[in-house]
Amino acid sequence: MQVYVHRVHYYETDKMGCVHHSNHIRWMEEARVAFLEELGISFRTMEARGIYSPVVGVECRYRHPAYFDEEIQILVRISSFETLRLKIEYEMSSMTDGEIIATGSSEHCFTDLTGRPIALKKTHPDIDAVLRAQLPLSCSDAQCAPQCSSAQNKK
Amino acid sequence: MQVYVHRVHYYETDKMGCVHHSNHIRWMEEARVAFLEELGISFRTMEARGIYSPVVGVECRYRHPAYFDEEIQILVRISSFETLRLKIEYEMSSMTDGEIIATGSSEHCFTDLTGRPIALKKTHPDIDAVLRAQLPLSCSDAQCAPQCSSAQNKK
Amino acid sequence: MQVYVHRVHYYETDKMGCVHHSNHIRWMEEARVAFLEELGISFRTMEARGIYSPVVGVECRYRHPAYFDEEIQILVRISSFETLRLKIEYEMSSMTDGEIIATGSSEHCFTDLTGRPIALKKTHPDIDAVLRAQLPLSCSDAQCAPQCSSAQNKK
Amino acid sequence: MQVYVHRVHYYETDKMGCVHHSNHIRWMEEARVAFLEELGISFRTMEARGIYSPVVGVECRYRHPAYFDEEIQILVRISSFETLRLKIEYEMSSMTDGEIIATGSSEHCFTDLTGRPIALKKTHPDIDAVLRAQLPLSCSDAQCAPQCSSAQNKK
Repeated sequence: MQVYVHRVHYYETDKMGCVHHSNHIRWMEEARVAFLEELGISFRTMEARGIYSPVVGVECRYRHPAYFDEEIQILVRISSFETLRLKIEYEMSSMTDGEIIATGSSEHCFTDLTGRPIALKKTHPDIDAVLRAQLPLSCSDAQCAPQCSSAQNKK
Repeated sequence: MQVYVHRVHYYETDKMGCVHHSNHIRWMEEARVAFLEELGISFRTMEARGIYSPVVGVECRYRHPAYFDEEIQILVRISSFETLRLKIEYEMSSMTDGEIIATGSSEHCFTDLTGRPIALKKTHPDIDAVLRAQLPLSCSDAQCAPQCSSAQNKK
Repeated sequence: MQVYVHRVHYYETDKMGCVHHSNHIRWMEEARVAFLEELGISFRTMEARGIYSPVVGVECRYRHPAYFDEEIQILVRISSFETLRLKIEYEMSSMTDGEIIATGSSEHCFTDLTGRPIALKKTHPDIDAVLRAQLPLSCSDAQCAPQCSSAQNKK
Repeated sequence: MQVYVHRVHYYETDKMGCVHHSNHIRWMEEARVAFLEELGISFRTMEARGIYSPVVGVECRYRHPAYFDEEIQILVRISSFETLRLKIEYEMSSMTDGEIIATGSSEHCFTDLTGRPIALKKTHPDIDAVLRAQLPLSCSDAQCAPQCSSAQNKK
């Protein structure tokens, strides 16, 4: 898990007086970019190696408004990674009072530069390994989901 | 169901060559504004009557990229409306080839100008009725969800 | 001169209650895209023929705030066109009360797809002619500025 | 003069592969916010004391493209401050190679919360003094412009 801080810009507010909800989606991208860079697989590195990771889905729940000039701490973690799909989760909270502003997630596939889906495990096993190592509970196998569940059930 | 058309602006594209995924969230808002206006309960009307409808959640699935200058048709419909929560669904498709670009939804509560949640049924029954009339299958009662299910089960 | 209409989106407002000043720059682009398309030299056409027209400068004076849901009429005209530089002017006014919201301008050069500046007069004389025909007072010669002045002085 | 650093976000790029020109206007605001805060007269402080400083004009010259993930250093300085008008200048350069990306300026007036113009010198002399102290060449008098010119002419 990595922490990213975004300070709210004036131009991100709307006439309700707080941040417009579309910006949280952008903050998730900012945090994701920083997160992947920290893992050594930045967007630049990926694109240089011929990999794009388009967003195939996003979701966000808004719990408290965020205000101009407030510092927002964003926690990022990989919640699942299957052969063709990566899911990342985000928790955004105010650094003023610790209150949770929003939670969200994004889903990504991987394609080559022509847009054709690729399985990182086959085409770029080193990157696949880096992502897999971030999975909770060492779920490092693509077929791990049931195993994890049973592992958790044993507790 | 209402149709709204958005033509893709240059500034909405990103370096992948197509529309950045945060813009679909904004298009959903554009379509929602037009939809509510057509129902006679525009944002302006609502705010003039002391009602805000903050976004409490959004979700979007991206199926095909949207390109600069492309006209995107957005279908809008209310998918559920309970006492304190309104859910609206969107289907965005290319007017060039009819292909579905993305589907999404947004959830809203209603508050007074101080941010306190309100139940439209009590505070503004006329607006409540307008929204309720848009529900699929005449689910016009606040407690309709189970009834609808049973109605559907009978089929 | 061409007229373009932009309706103000909620997400374009800021916490002062009116449109954030960065959006007027985007509206100028929207109006420019429509204007060039009407001339038969759309961005698409240009890019298909290997021409980019990067923005080399913008300028905007804000005279009245623009508000959510207001329709803004944008007049566009070419104010000067020399061998390597095109200048376009914009006047944005409220369709509610006719008040001028802002005036602005943008300057553009032309490059090939590698970013090297090109002189349309040599590389694409047909496009050069279309732009030149839009100049005020038939200033259709690249060296026209002084001639126009003298032409005007004669009146 | 103060230095502000902005790292280019993916969502700030457009399909030409570099930053869309409207974002530089937003970066100028980010840098201005940080600059005024450093002077002890942040937007928050100003608004708490009943002062708004709307943008009445902006201008930007683009000299080199800015790319995704590049760090942009923004120098900010007050270039003139007369009774009712503040002008701030910006120089944006790449921290990768030092190249100047863009230069710009913004002009601001001051109003009370109802939008009526105010002369800080009369209403808020302490804030007036802070801004005036930032003027080049100690031009701290509202009528300084000619004096500065003559002072410079003497050199």
